[in-house]
Amino acid sequence: MAIEGTTEKREPRIKLGMVGGGSGAFIGAVHRIASRIDDQYELVAGALSSTPEKSRQSGAELGLHPSRIYDDFKAMAIREAKLKDGIEAVSIVTPNHMHYPAAKEFLRRGIHVICDKPLTSNLADAKKLLKVAEESDALFVLTHNYTGYPMVRQAREMVRNGELGEIRIVQMEYPQDWLAEPIEQTGQKQAAWRTDPKQSGVGGSTGDIGTHAYNLGCFISGLELEELAADVHTFVAGRQLDDNAHVMMRFAGGAKGLLWCSQVATGHENGLKVRVYGTKGGIEWVQADPNYLWFTPLGKPRQLITRNGAGSGADAARVSRIPSGHPEGYLEGFATIYTEAARAIIAKRKGEKVDPAVLYPTVQDGVKGVAFVEACIASSKRNGAWIKV
Amino acid sequence: MAIEGTTEKREPRIKLGMVGGGSGAFIGAVHRIASRIDDQYELVAGALSSTPEKSRQSGAELGLHPSRIYDDFKAMAIREAKLKDGIEAVSIVTPNHMHYPAAKEFLRRGIHVICDKPLTSNLADAKKLLKVAEESDALFVLTHNYTGYPMVRQAREMVRNGELGEIRIVQMEYPQDWLAEPIEQTGQKQAAWRTDPKQSGVGGSTGDIGTHAYNLGCFISGLELEELAADVHTFVAGRQLDDNAHVMMRFAGGAKGLLWCSQVATGHENGLKVRVYGTKGGIEWVQADPNYLWFTPLGKPRQLITRNGAGSGADAARVSRIPSGHPEGYLEGFATIYTEAARAIIAKRKGEKVDPAVLYPTVQDGVKGVAFVEACIASSKRNGAWIKV
Amino acid sequence: MAIEGTTEKREPRIKLGMVGGGSGAFIGAVHRIASRIDDQYELVAGALSSTPEKSRQSGAELGLHPSRIYDDFKAMAIREAKLKDGIEAVSIVTPNHMHYPAAKEFLRRGIHVICDKPLTSNLADAKKLLKVAEESDALFVLTHNYTGYPMVRQAREMVRNGELGEIRIVQMEYPQDWLAEPIEQTGQKQAAWRTDPKQSGVGGSTGDIGTHAYNLGCFISGLELEELAADVHTFVAGRQLDDNAHVMMRFAGGAKGLLWCSQVATGHENGLKVRVYGTKGGIEWVQADPNYLWFTPLGKPRQLITRNGAGSGADAARVSRIPSGHPEGYLEGFATIYTEAARAIIAKRKGEKVDPAVLYPTVQDGVKGVAFVEACIASSKRNGAWIKV
Amino acid sequence: MAIEGTTEKREPRIKLGMVGGGSGAFIGAVHRIASRIDDQYELVAGALSSTPEKSRQSGAELGLHPSRIYDDFKAMAIREAKLKDGIEAVSIVTPNHMHYPAAKEFLRRGIHVICDKPLTSNLADAKKLLKVAEESDALFVLTHNYTGYPMVRQAREMVRNGELGEIRIVQMEYPQDWLAEPIEQTGQKQAAWRTDPKQSGVGGSTGDIGTHAYNLGCFISGLELEELAADVHTFVAGRQLDDNAHVMMRFAGGAKGLLWCSQVATGHENGLKVRVYGTKGGIEWVQADPNYLWFTPLGKPRQLITRNGAGSGADAARVSRIPSGHPEGYLEGFATIYTEAARAIIAKRKGEKVDPAVLYPTVQDGVKGVAFVEACIASSKRNGAWIKV
Repeated sequence: MAIEGTTEKREPRIKLGMVGGGSGAFIGAVHRIASRIDDQYELVAGALSSTPEKSRQSGAELGLHPSRIYDDFKAMAIREAKLKDGIEAVSIVTPNHMHYPAAKEFLRRGIHVICDKPLTSNLADAKKLLKVAEESDALFVLTHNYTGYPMVRQAREMVRNGELGEIRIVQMEYPQDWLAEPIEQTGQKQAAWRTDPKQSGVGGSTGDIGTHAYNLGCFISGLELEELAADVHTFVAGRQLDDNAHVMMRFAGGAKGLLWCSQVATGHENGLKVRVYGTKGGIEWVQADPNYLWFTPLGKPRQLITRNGAGSGADAARVSRIPSGHPEGYLEGFATIYTEAARAIIAKRKGEKVDPAVLYPTVQDGVKGVAFVEACIASSKRNGAWIKV
Repeated sequence: MAIEGTTEKREPRIKLGMVGGGSGAFIGAVHRIASRIDDQYELVAGALSSTPEKSRQSGAELGLHPSRIYDDFKAMAIREAKLKDGIEAVSIVTPNHMHYPAAKEFLRRGIHVICDKPLTSNLADAKKLLKVAEESDALFVLTHNYTGYPMVRQAREMVRNGELGEIRIVQMEYPQDWLAEPIEQTGQKQAAWRTDPKQSGVGGSTGDIGTHAYNLGCFISGLELEELAADVHTFVAGRQLDDNAHVMMRFAGGAKGLLWCSQVATGHENGLKVRVYGTKGGIEWVQADPNYLWFTPLGKPRQLITRNGAGSGADAARVSRIPSGHPEGYLEGFATIYTEAARAIIAKRKGEKVDPAVLYPTVQDGVKGVAFVEACIASSKRNGAWIKV
Repeated sequence: MAIEGTTEKREPRIKLGMVGGGSGAFIGAVHRIASRIDDQYELVAGALSSTPEKSRQSGAELGLHPSRIYDDFKAMAIREAKLKDGIEAVSIVTPNHMHYPAAKEFLRRGIHVICDKPLTSNLADAKKLLKVAEESDALFVLTHNYTGYPMVRQAREMVRNGELGEIRIVQMEYPQDWLAEPIEQTGQKQAAWRTDPKQSGVGGSTGDIGTHAYNLGCFISGLELEELAADVHTFVAGRQLDDNAHVMMRFAGGAKGLLWCSQVATGHENGLKVRVYGTKGGIEWVQADPNYLWFTPLGKPRQLITRNGAGSGADAARVSRIPSGHPEGYLEGFATIYTEAARAIIAKRKGEKVDPAVLYPTVQDGVKGVAFVEACIASSKRNGAWIKV
Repeated sequence: MAIEGTTEKREPRIKLGMVGGGSGAFIGAVHRIASRIDDQYELVAGALSSTPEKSRQSGAELGLHPSRIYDDFKAMAIREAKLKDGIEAVSIVTPNHMHYPAAKEFLRRGIHVICDKPLTSNLADAKKLLKVAEESDALFVLTHNYTGYPMVRQAREMVRNGELGEIRIVQMEYPQDWLAEPIEQTGQKQAAWRTDPKQSGVGGSTGDIGTHAYNLGCFISGLELEELAADVHTFVAGRQLDDNAHVMMRFAGGAKGLLWCSQVATGHENGLKVRVYGTKGGIEWVQADPNYLWFTPLGKPRQLITRNGAGSGADAARVSRIPSGHPEGYLEGFATIYTEAARAIIAKRKGEKVDPAVLYPTVQDGVKGVAFVEACIASSKRNGAWIKV
């Protein structure tokens, strides 16, 4: 990792705020750890819950100064924008439907936004957010965190270098089993909001994990989706959103894809896997074993490339912290999104230009993700008709 | 394996003939080895090639008596049916379009048929063959050989025993890469007939390997396919048949399926894999590592069941030859189809009843396979419309 | 596999007898299947048990002609040697202590011997057998069957070709768990004779499986053992022979080795694994997954070579029957020893010379194996002192 | 992880200093990240290099205040001990021979020490350090970081709970290949000091990685080593310390062990693996895939337990940060040592008692590690004689 422990002169840490992520929220803690790993951020402010009392309690637990704990995100945006040492960036880790209203307040005030995925709970909001982001001078970073894994970067680099030849097939899957039973009906908080269309939008498994798989397939292959045909289903009785989806895809240029996401695939924890096949070779990457990348050149033995090991290139090395053979995990991949964002923020401080698409998922990627979810649902409603995206 | 080395009184070996499978034909040698492994057959006659000269040469190499080497299958059927010690069964291992005409000659004369898959090159032939088989007293055995693997039997038994609960999802895939380049245009014989619609029928990858995956998914899950939507494609320029197919499936009772077959998936040799998920657990089986079965009961640790090891039951044991930890392979699985057929043939000799569906794939399974292929092609021609099968 | 299905003119099958291997004996059935797979043998005679009655019953079950079922191996050797179409070879599959007396009778009468391992139950017998074999014109083949696996041949070829550089380290292990409890005390027949010094000799796990691992390590690496230091132990109370051994090794030329064999390693079925490391690369082979060979060239990505796949060479192809991606197993590897023996026997018929060491494990390998076992026990008795072998 | 994101009232972060770990030192960066992950430490001071200039430059890069960057560790210990907000703990990440002199200065002044392994470069120093630590009121934490992996904790818990029965066999290995060639002779800094007896002590691979494997085997199994017999070797010409060792072990109570460490095992990055077998079951853990633990109960199917997944217990959960299926890695395991140390330090602040042996490796463990290394060398010098430790 270039930033820590290099000879670059150290830049002051980025003052960070957080919206959502109070006590007990899994993803909030993940964002905080991710922001600390490479020491580029300092969490100084928060509107950590939709209830002021809980926000205050959570802030205290995190050691925030009471004056920087806010009852709601708007108050935080207004005041922090005015403070001399106010936050320079904010992490938004609320349920999906709050992403747009929250992000808007910060972007409009020039505060960079690091936002959890999916971008929004519907495509209309996504397009509005796109507009706000384009009009703002502040950066917008979407935490499709899997793009931060070194071997995902390696895979993308190999595709770009032509090592796979022309891409023909992209197979994406993200099976889980945590919703195999109707746990949202028995008070599991995570399950409740993720299966609630008001908070999550029209997509259940498609929005929660299908978007990740879709984003990753495109990130690695470099392909643009043209149309899809989907068979989206809800297996668990009483559930309001989908918990399984089968999707056939056609990409610009003629490549074909298949995507499966499921929250009822018994035996899978977070079985995200992406496989890409070209005329000259294939690759396979599995999230649960992220330090490995299978490379299968046509007519040669299969190769198991390890992070920073032989055959692993510059793109992976740039986002690795430790030598090969010592595994990096989910938090490090997540941290890379934060650190790439920090590079862009610091470049911006200095007036330097960087290409965000190289560093992190952007608001445009977010719009694509929401469009994918809505297309899945639309196709399925039309009995699997092909839908342009 | 019950037959060899048990206290059962030994039955005389079954006299076997072969149609096709001359020198250099991969699958003919496989059938012959399979017929020998459990010592239930004796190969005594053959019409081993479409050219009489090659048939005679191949017969000599195999040590057949010259009087039992025939120029064509019809001559063989006629004469062997009259011989006092004529063949009791015949293996048909020709290209697909010859299955029906050859099988007909033997079935009509009361000679049992063990036939390679797919059943025929088109659905019309398949239905005619079904009729002939139903009218014949002889048995018809289709070598969907993967159903002979012990852990496939184990998987079926676990589904039947309810260990997976109600089945929700069946994921089937069979990727290969041997046709990633247009080798049929440079004289590779296997590639030539398998990509030739006259010999293979309308399906390329769908007929050659998609049928295997489909058959296996149904064999294990016990489900009946209701309809499918397919995106079938030919990637290699100049190829006449499909070399990649993405298929969405709906089964009777509400389960969903996904099937991928490909002959251009660079890096895959014979990547047949079946995964089945129910309300209570899932299973995963991979052909290249056939002595293992993953069982993933909801809320319990993943289990890796090994052939004949702890947790492996009676169905697997019945078709196993050696203890756990010593791998059985493709030929043993294939041999099981032959040995199951021998059980049925011997039962028939004795006038005993057996249920063929328990032992081996039947002509009915074969019709379903051909219907699947034609449905894939039909759906794809209608831009992926759902087609009843 | 060159013999079946090639253009070679077919040689008459080798008439085979068997000593031991009656009903219920695991290894006898294995030898019989192995002899059938490539169709080079015909089992025609047997002295299948130490009790005449059981021998006759077993012979009948196998379909032997009553005149060729013998009460004991000596009678069989005497009569078969005189018959016009008497056996040309015999398989000896008795407990270890009978190998020498049985083999002697056949070798002296010019009948080739295919003998199970270890060679004998003690070094004195081994040396006597060596002498008998050297004086006989008949061949002696020891079924260290693991040397028949294609990827073991591939490994040996890579070492010989220098792809690993100079060999530094050989790690061998063969853990099992079937004797984790004192099952020999409750009537398990296999366990009874294998833990009985009268039938097995001084070595328990060392003789039964340690010899396999040692043989394989030497076969692949091409190294000669110079000395060893062993810590041999019996964990199960009341057991007469060792059930676990740790052995350090020094090879001629300076390479080092480690060998572990155990019959009480809970969770292992037949965990035979050999790893060899040289100055330029390493290899790893695991018996339970025999169609794979890891090759790890220094400074390059790890490669997973598959049987007959890319990177797999001539030595593996010569002993393979089916294409890559379709697994061959234990029985095929075992069959290869039989087929290699058939090549040598047929060459001998024709007066041609072949180098047995290329084809199959020899009596010399067998002597080394028994010497290894006795050295382990001797070292352990002297508290792990280094013992020359 | 209990500390972050719980309802406990937040304790002030621990002010931390660092000795060694300047620019380019791999392990220094690892310690710093580890200290940040759970937000319990704040790095405020450092004597980061043996050369003052480099120390100052490294301190500036890390953003330390110039007044807290020291030319040497003694100056740092003296001044920080006097400061009102001086460091409460120090990380020592120098080459081995400096551990003792550095640790001594801090322990004597009541500053807690978090020290890299091995404890010291020789047993004499180790014993002196033990004495200093015992006389000090400050804590001493040894970063045998692998003990921080959740599934290592799980393994220990399962042994303690008796799920493996009585332990019989412990197999430890730690192969690497980074020293397969004499890179220390061409200026690789890490290789230079690790192969230099003046900085590392008498052990090369034994000290650098063998100690890790030994520590982990004991940590999981709960066994105490009684004696060992070693064959220690240097394969690379001109190298001063061992680069390969084979070690046989006998534990108190009768269990047996085998340990292999190597820095010339071509193809291995950090192949640390520990296997433990008891009368009732076995376990296997591999550092490169740390979120998995194989559990193989005798007579039941093998189980693959995943971190925080089904079957994973309280000990693993206590040191996990994220849900199952999202991998934690090396840095998180390392962070756990820091966080466990923080628990002890905070408990000490409050005057509460904790048992350090539950939380982190202690100075006593460190002494055992150095004794192990010296015993290996001593045994090897006496041609593998058994040496009591």
